[in-house]
Amino acid sequence: MASILLLNGPNLNLLGIREPELYGAETLAAIVDRLLVRAQAAGRELEHLQTNSEAELLDRIHGARGGFEAIVINPGAWGHTSLALVDALVAVGIPYFEVHITNVLARGGRRAELLLAPAAAGVIVGFGTRGYDFALAAALKLFD
Amino acid sequence: MASILLLNGPNLNLLGIREPELYGAETLAAIVDRLLVRAQAAGRELEHLQTNSEAELLDRIHGARGGFEAIVINPGAWGHTSLALVDALVAVGIPYFEVHITNVLARGGRRAELLLAPAAAGVIVGFGTRGYDFALAAALKLFD
Amino acid sequence: MASILLLNGPNLNLLGIREPELYGAETLAAIVDRLLVRAQAAGRELEHLQTNSEAELLDRIHGARGGFEAIVINPGAWGHTSLALVDALVAVGIPYFEVHITNVLARGGRRAELLLAPAAAGVIVGFGTRGYDFALAAALKLFD
Amino acid sequence: MASILLLNGPNLNLLGIREPELYGAETLAAIVDRLLVRAQAAGRELEHLQTNSEAELLDRIHGARGGFEAIVINPGAWGHTSLALVDALVAVGIPYFEVHITNVLARGGRRAELLLAPAAAGVIVGFGTRGYDFALAAALKLFD
Amino acid sequence: MASILLLNGPNLNLLGIREPELYGAETLAAIVDRLLVRAQAAGRELEHLQTNSEAELLDRIHGARGGFEAIVINPGAWGHTSLALVDALVAVGIPYFEVHITNVLARGGRRAELLLAPAAAGVIVGFGTRGYDFALAAALKLFD
Amino acid sequence: MASILLLNGPNLNLLGIREPELYGAETLAAIVDRLLVRAQAAGRELEHLQTNSEAELLDRIHGARGGFEAIVINPGAWGHTSLALVDALVAVGIPYFEVHITNVLARGGRRAELLLAPAAAGVIVGFGTRGYDFALAAALKLFD
Amino acid sequence: MASILLLNGPNLNLLGIREPELYGAETLAAIVDRLLVRAQAAGRELEHLQTNSEAELLDRIHGARGGFEAIVINPGAWGHTSLALVDALVAVGIPYFEVHITNVLARGGRRAELLLAPAAAGVIVGFGTRGYDFALAAALKLFD
Amino acid sequence: MASILLLNGPNLNLLGIREPELYGAETLAAIVDRLLVRAQAAGRELEHLQTNSEAELLDRIHGARGGFEAIVINPGAWGHTSLALVDALVAVGIPYFEVHITNVLARGGRRAELLLAPAAAGVIVGFGTRGYDFALAAALKLFD
Amino acid sequence: MASILLLNGPNLNLLGIREPELYGAETLAAIVDRLLVRAQAAGRELEHLQTNSEAELLDRIHGARGGFEAIVINPGAWGHTSLALVDALVAVGIPYFEVHITNVLARGGRRAELLLAPAAAGVIVGFGTRGYDFALAAALKLFD
Amino acid sequence: MASILLLNGPNLNLLGIREPELYGAETLAAIVDRLLVRAQAAGRELEHLQTNSEAELLDRIHGARGGFEAIVINPGAWGHTSLALVDALVAVGIPYFEVHITNVLARGGRRAELLLAPAAAGVIVGFGTRGYDFALAAALKLFD
Amino acid sequence: MASILLLNGPNLNLLGIREPELYGAETLAAIVDRLLVRAQAAGRELEHLQTNSEAELLDRIHGARGGFEAIVINPGAWGHTSLALVDALVAVGIPYFEVHITNVLARGGRRAELLLAPAAAGVIVGFGTRGYDFALAAALKLFD
Amino acid sequence: MASILLLNGPNLNLLGIREPELYGAETLAAIVDRLLVRAQAAGRELEHLQTNSEAELLDRIHGARGGFEAIVINPGAWGHTSLALVDALVAVGIPYFEVHITNVLARGGRRAELLLAPAAAGVIVGFGTRGYDFALAAALKLFD
Repeated sequence: MASILLLNGPNLNLLGIREPELYGAETLAAIVDRLLVRAQAAGRELEHLQTNSEAELLDRIHGARGGFEAIVINPGAWGHTSLALVDALVAVGIPYFEVHITNVLARGGRRAELLLAPAAAGVIVGFGTRGYDFALAAALKLFD
Repeated sequence: MASILLLNGPNLNLLGIREPELYGAETLAAIVDRLLVRAQAAGRELEHLQTNSEAELLDRIHGARGGFEAIVINPGAWGHTSLALVDALVAVGIPYFEVHITNVLARGGRRAELLLAPAAAGVIVGFGTRGYDFALAAALKLFD
Repeated sequence: MASILLLNGPNLNLLGIREPELYGAETLAAIVDRLLVRAQAAGRELEHLQTNSEAELLDRIHGARGGFEAIVINPGAWGHTSLALVDALVAVGIPYFEVHITNVLARGGRRAELLLAPAAAGVIVGFGTRGYDFALAAALKLFD
Repeated sequence: MASILLLNGPNLNLLGIREPELYGAETLAAIVDRLLVRAQAAGRELEHLQTNSEAELLDRIHGARGGFEAIVINPGAWGHTSLALVDALVAVGIPYFEVHITNVLARGGRRAELLLAPAAAGVIVGFGTRGYDFALAAALKLFD
Repeated sequence: MASILLLNGPNLNLLGIREPELYGAETLAAIVDRLLVRAQAAGRELEHLQTNSEAELLDRIHGARGGFEAIVINPGAWGHTSLALVDALVAVGIPYFEVHITNVLARGGRRAELLLAPAAAGVIVGFGTRGYDFALAAALKLFD
Repeated sequence: MASILLLNGPNLNLLGIREPELYGAETLAAIVDRLLVRAQAAGRELEHLQTNSEAELLDRIHGARGGFEAIVINPGAWGHTSLALVDALVAVGIPYFEVHITNVLARGGRRAELLLAPAAAGVIVGFGTRGYDFALAAALKLFD
Repeated sequence: MASILLLNGPNLNLLGIREPELYGAETLAAIVDRLLVRAQAAGRELEHLQTNSEAELLDRIHGARGGFEAIVINPGAWGHTSLALVDALVAVGIPYFEVHITNVLARGGRRAELLLAPAAAGVIVGFGTRGYDFALAAALKLFD
Repeated sequence: MASILLLNGPNLNLLGIREPELYGAETLAAIVDRLLVRAQAAGRELEHLQTNSEAELLDRIHGARGGFEAIVINPGAWGHTSLALVDALVAVGIPYFEVHITNVLARGGRRAELLLAPAAAGVIVGFGTRGYDFALAAALKLFD
Repeated sequence: MASILLLNGPNLNLLGIREPELYGAETLAAIVDRLLVRAQAAGRELEHLQTNSEAELLDRIHGARGGFEAIVINPGAWGHTSLALVDALVAVGIPYFEVHITNVLARGGRRAELLLAPAAAGVIVGFGTRGYDFALAAALKLFD
Repeated sequence: MASILLLNGPNLNLLGIREPELYGAETLAAIVDRLLVRAQAAGRELEHLQTNSEAELLDRIHGARGGFEAIVINPGAWGHTSLALVDALVAVGIPYFEVHITNVLARGGRRAELLLAPAAAGVIVGFGTRGYDFALAAALKLFD
Repeated sequence: MASILLLNGPNLNLLGIREPELYGAETLAAIVDRLLVRAQAAGRELEHLQTNSEAELLDRIHGARGGFEAIVINPGAWGHTSLALVDALVAVGIPYFEVHITNVLARGGRRAELLLAPAAAGVIVGFGTRGYDFALAAALKLFD
Repeated sequence: MASILLLNGPNLNLLGIREPELYGAETLAAIVDRLLVRAQAAGRELEHLQTNSEAELLDRIHGARGGFEAIVINPGAWGHTSLALVDALVAVGIPYFEVHITNVLARGGRRAELLLAPAAAGVIVGFGTRGYDFALAAALKLFD
């Protein structure tokens, strides 16, 4: 059965806890549960990893080669700073969809640059936690 | 009955015709038909305008005050050049979702700047014509 | 009888309606009426055009050659983007005064650049709608 | 019979009238007449449009698909600002030659950037109105 | 009786003397006299200081707290270089109108940046010495 | 009893060992001991973590929510590169004081940018290891 | 008896008066009194100068050669603009500590550059008026 | 009999040999022969120099004073790097037409800057080797 | 017996697997084996670490103090982003040689900056996996 | 008898005292004495002012109108920051020669910009205190 | 027998003479002799040219077409300034290895840009004169 | 007998001929004659080279090692473009004085950068051909 890998980068474990007026009150666990149901309804598996360790994230991406057909990733702040993350995603050759909950494009300085975006299959910003659902929907379409 | 306004900027009348390897073979008419069905299924009206005239687009946005609750807009190239379009959208105060079919974030120079994005409710790029569906879905949620 | 041309660019038809806390509650019609009275009191004609169409604005400026002795223009957002507007004003050789209602110099990014300003007879920003009156007063002085 | 499309952008209707010391005393009508004769002598049709409306220009380019084999275009100031114009020309896939009457490369700021140039078949600047003749000559060679 | 403070920065004592083809033949004394009459006609006091000493200007602004309701200031070259002047004006919290006699926005380099402008109530450039009159007129309106 | 969290980023375990002519001969252990005494004398607890792992640092900051009232942090090189660290500190909402032993503001390139500084309660650079004492003193004052 | 020179630049005479929500309600006189007590307790003299005149500040620094062993300076806005001040401090060769009451590093534009910082013994920003105490404490340590 | 000087800069001796898919298969000798015929047909002399030595090119330009009425020059890469070449052309005061075979304006970095262009009578890029013919035609018109 | 430390950063465990057309088919294990033989032939020990964890890499470098006389490092993407890595290498004071398998200097954006290079003993890019051999050869020469 | 005005800006009173290894051991008084002798030998008067007050310098320049035929000025750090000084020199219309004792062109940042240079009759940097003699010699030649 | 071309640009004839503390005491002749031996040992010919004339270097590269299979080049300062050199190397289509004796990547300004690097087969900097040996070794491998 | 080397770069052979209103009517030969007399009067030899060949200039500088004690050089346009020239001058270690006849600092773009200046003993610009005399005078002082 085909699989999708859901990845969340640094600080996203605080979803629903930190700055709810900005990121919403929904916890990461609730989001993942909802996406699991959606994936299963579409006849696919979904695996999830949230980590504050770049090393763990890189290892997980490496391990995804061959086993997953699409990645949905919210890289958090690493989306602006980690070229190693870009390299890993490009190296394993799995199409990925990038999600940002808030409108990061509205922020200046380094936050305005999205390092993962140029090689992404799609990028969605500012749709709140619903962005995950849309990215998953797009990923599921890849199997058709 | 609440309404949604769908706007398409310059050259998007060529969708499905120009550079299909880049933009897909789906015509704009087909996309609009599909979105109309979706909106009606959700109990809403959808009005559409594609125009190559900035004046016509500005006038349409002005006329939307009071009558629409959300805008879905693919500004095409004007997304990189038209501050007047930004002003009009901000002036009428209707939340809008910005759609780009291809991954414009992967292009350098002036294309890398999205003038409408900072004030948008959400931005979706590179998901192909499905980006319209996701933006519409998000817009429909505004009535809940 | 000598004449003055009053021009207003995109979105200015919303004056008094959009964002009154920012632009004031005075409508464009009220402003134009007041300026007409002032011009007539000084023994001059005043013609006015507000348009969201760059083409219409360019044509109006072209048509002003020979018939007007001064232009008062609030270019709105085109003041930051339209080099064609600059070309038209320079081509007809009529001195023009540029008005911005709010303090656009306080805004960053592309808004900080005023393309029409270098060739203008004068520029007035942030004086509210009274800026039109001052610009008209200066324009009337050209006949002395 | 194969055809060539001649396009002139904003303010070029003033040729021969505005700033003759800069742009020469030849009117646009005179130039077009001369080019018509040249095209007919080479056994081709030539159609011409000058417009101050970007919308009209985009529509004309769209309509040229299939009917024209080359475009000669003087975009005027839009050559520095209109990405929509670039998109239209690239979309219809007709080779185009860009003409600027004066040496725009000698001007600084935004005028130094030619947005249409990278995808043009050729660019000619500063040869006066003769630049049209050279561009037409090059366009005619495309049929050989 | 309410009061207005008129401030002139470095080199403006040379008005009417230095480069008259650029700044006009009117002396600073003549300007001040005219403004005094205008202020008195409106039932207000006007105090004036021209100084080439930044220290004297800062001290005068400090001393204006409580005693003046508006400031009209031509900062001369300090408008491009003195952040201390910005701090002083912001600190005393009196609304100020900035005047430049010539069109400084037409000059490149450091002259293109107006440090006082972002916090000003209004900015007027290039209207010649009449700019003072307009600024004063705007300042007088503050008492209404 | 209220608590303060002392955090040291990458390479700071080498304090007193690496480049003593630049960073001084005092070891990190000695510094921490001294600060512990100071904190206890003020009736507070002090916890310390030095780590070369960004993941460990993020986790420690997350865990500090609710348990600490102030953070003193020397982020080392991460102060110039880690937006994830900024996000974590802002997310937990604990006021933090940033310390750099040497004068990093005197260095060019990327070292001149302090990513944590804009949201910090205070920043102290170049005071040697005494900077920790000052930051702790300021942190202790928060309880008054 | 060894001495320390305390210097305050433009507008700092307004401390405790201007924008108290930003700079605190403590007056400069109160701060100086407190620092005098501290210095005397450590067996040192403290001299103070606040001035809005750059000339007076330069002269005071020149006069400090030989007579003072450390300088504590809050340069105010001159910290971003006065290279003459940098030259004077470097010329007399007395170690100096730079203090900014608020977090100037959080401000963009020219305020982000601290001209005195590269040659300073230490820089402290955002600690409120307590920053003076820390800088003085560091200066006093120089005699040990 | 009036004369025209044809100049070709570095690496242009490889025309027709190097990268024919980019520069065409026509050799420089063939181009020069064709231009000679054209010049003679117009009753003028044409002299040609291709050199990889900047010194030789400068000397040839110096020697052209008084003897030539126009220059057609393809400066190759020196068009982006040699200010000495600009100086020489300006010094001898002979109008020159600059030719680039390929569309150098489409290349980024230093290639985007054309140092000779600002002072050129005309610039033609991307017309292939036919650009020489157009430039020659323009040069011949100078005698009329 | 003197020793050399071979370090490989993130994603380099994929060598020979990811993008072989770009990085070659040789695995990292094969490279390390070959270098081990070379080092032993020269009478030295070689230790190797590949890691995707910056923390592990920093710790390994710290531990190298005193035990190794040279480092050969391929930092991968961290070579463009990790100032902490630079700090660690500089802190332990062991000369290091930087290797990049492909020509990273040919890539734009952030990849064009090599943070480790300024303090490196040597840098070799684009020689394929043979770059390790050359760097090792240079490192071995340090013992002579 | 014609006169020359010698001006020295901030900190130059420390010449011969501050950093003699950089600026030489010659005092300003000694330099002025030498220049006085030279000027008198040429039959001219020389007046001198060194000041740390920009106001005093501006006033002195204003007062020079009509009375002096040339100015020799070492603006010190104001040469990089004071546009008011530029304005004053241009306003009085007296040719001036700018002197810098050390090679300020070799310094980066703001010191690399010489604000007075564009309008100067000549600029001499890095010749030590002899630069004054050369500038005086050039100024004396103006009377011939 | 296959051949390798060794090229050295301007000032490299001074190797071993100029700044030996920077470039080493080995003369260019000694380096060439050593490389000749190495090439012959590998059964190849090596030809060498050092020149201070860009023209001579371009001609030599042109002449290498067909006769050489690899180039080893130290372009000296031309590596930062000569686009003509880049053109020549790309035109002849021979793979080339770029050598810089010192770590030019550690230098700022124009020296930080390596114009030849993007199209090079490999680049080696900072390995001293041994860099030539490594580049030659890599070039010899091309025949395998 | 000690010697001075006078060097003139590209196009300076045209002095007195090209643009006399800009560079004066004095020929290079006349300048050199005058400087020869001056040098001999001071008991020194003077040798002169003007060349349009960078190679010849580099060779002449190389040959100057040991035989000359100072260089006076007007590099012309190479002063803005030739790093090889900088390298040669630094390599031979002879102090050099740079002369520019006109005020090149008043020109923008690449002309504003003086590549030779940072390592020069002195730089003199805008003093006309007298700048050579001053530079020679300074050079002669080196023997004292």
